[in-house]
Amino acid sequence: MTRWRLTVEYDGGPFMGWQRQDHGPSVQQALEEALGRMTGERVAVHAAGRTDAGVHALAMSAHVDVEKALTPHRLREGLNALVRPQPISVLDVEPVADDWHARFSCTGRRYLYRILNRRAPPALERGKVWHIGVPLDVDAMAEGAQHLVGRHDFTTFRSVHCQSESPVKTLDRLEVRREGEEIRIEAAARSFLHHQVRSMVGCLAMVGRGQWSPEDIGKALAAKDRAALGFNAPPDGLYFVEAIYSAAKA
Amino acid sequence: MTRWRLTVEYDGGPFMGWQRQDHGPSVQQALEEALGRMTGERVAVHAAGRTDAGVHALAMSAHVDVEKALTPHRLREGLNALVRPQPISVLDVEPVADDWHARFSCTGRRYLYRILNRRAPPALERGKVWHIGVPLDVDAMAEGAQHLVGRHDFTTFRSVHCQSESPVKTLDRLEVRREGEEIRIEAAARSFLHHQVRSMVGCLAMVGRGQWSPEDIGKALAAKDRAALGFNAPPDGLYFVEAIYSAAKA
Repeated sequence: MTRWRLTVEYDGGPFMGWQRQDHGPSVQQALEEALGRMTGERVAVHAAGRTDAGVHALAMSAHVDVEKALTPHRLREGLNALVRPQPISVLDVEPVADDWHARFSCTGRRYLYRILNRRAPPALERGKVWHIGVPLDVDAMAEGAQHLVGRHDFTTFRSVHCQSESPVKTLDRLEVRREGEEIRIEAAARSFLHHQVRSMVGCLAMVGRGQWSPEDIGKALAAKDRAALGFNAPPDGLYFVEAIYSAAKA
Repeated sequence: MTRWRLTVEYDGGPFMGWQRQDHGPSVQQALEEALGRMTGERVAVHAAGRTDAGVHALAMSAHVDVEKALTPHRLREGLNALVRPQPISVLDVEPVADDWHARFSCTGRRYLYRILNRRAPPALERGKVWHIGVPLDVDAMAEGAQHLVGRHDFTTFRSVHCQSESPVKTLDRLEVRREGEEIRIEAAARSFLHHQVRSMVGCLAMVGRGQWSPEDIGKALAAKDRAALGFNAPPDGLYFVEAIYSAAKA
């Protein structure tokens, strides 16, 4: 048996999310079926994070145990051939130790959120950005974001479906910057609550529109109340960027 | 009557190209039908360039004559509402002089060609890049490109369907650079022959693969023979960037 680490890019648009669902296609199912066809084995693919429907990944990490002897080249090329035409691309594969776990060994996760901030809707980036037609105040958004960095009870920014044991998380980074017509928000933490990034971005957009002050972000956080939340940003603009595995933990 | 200049972004994927065709949808048809519904008039939209099937535009310039009185705001918003769900976005509209012509007043055109140069196929950028899985030598491509800059007979790089009166064009710029996994080729000229950019990129890719030397580009140009051509790059990676209108000409 070999445990393989997979690094996977995908367009979340046509999927119900990473995780297998009864009611529609998922990235996990696509990869498991391709692996099953390659090996004749029933395999389970575990990911560093479970992205929601419509959320994209630039480099999701996952692992899978395979009995059949395969070279990295053969595994990657075979998977990429078999997942077609679904918008999934296996960027890299490598054998890892049997106790390496894509989710539990992960010591850091990075997300990117892209807002297209111009009057006209997107044609080329449709489904890949959140379109906001009114000019946003990026400086106010960046100021508001700083209220969220650090160790906090993020109950306000947590989905009612969140399965995390504790609402207390440490947000290492939340940066907002403008690049031309686009506003890019980068978030980094050891782990996130369900819907946390989209909830934070939703509130930052309210600050950008001037409906909230930067300080209102801190007040919403302190309220520890889901009802204090603005709203969730749509999945379209969200990208799982990478999972980090520090040597100490692995 | 008002002559309006339109600046339009589009995803070329679902279209037969800019120009109206009997056998499938076109960007021109989508815009003319939307304008027809807004105004009740039969209108003709003229563009700075006629992109092929699958070729994208970041900011195509076009013009149209409309009898009905409209504000710029109303025209842009109305068009964007009516072209939906087709991937076309009217970025800007402005009234121009009656003798301003999107094609004949244009004094410069810029194109971008994007190559995704990594082993794994694209998931997020599918249809938006040319995927080449073997590593390309970008320095050799950049060197080869310089053989094409200047005033030349570009017969080698011309489609048999090209309607231009002369094969002699002046290529102002052809730059090749790597940005991470992507190779970006920027081309600028007063005007281009049909398929010229895709033909040039196709030959540069042969140089990048080591199948041609940089000097072979100069030899192919000097041959003035379509049979000396490598092949056309696919439309997926090609973007019409902008049309330039210098004050002197307008």
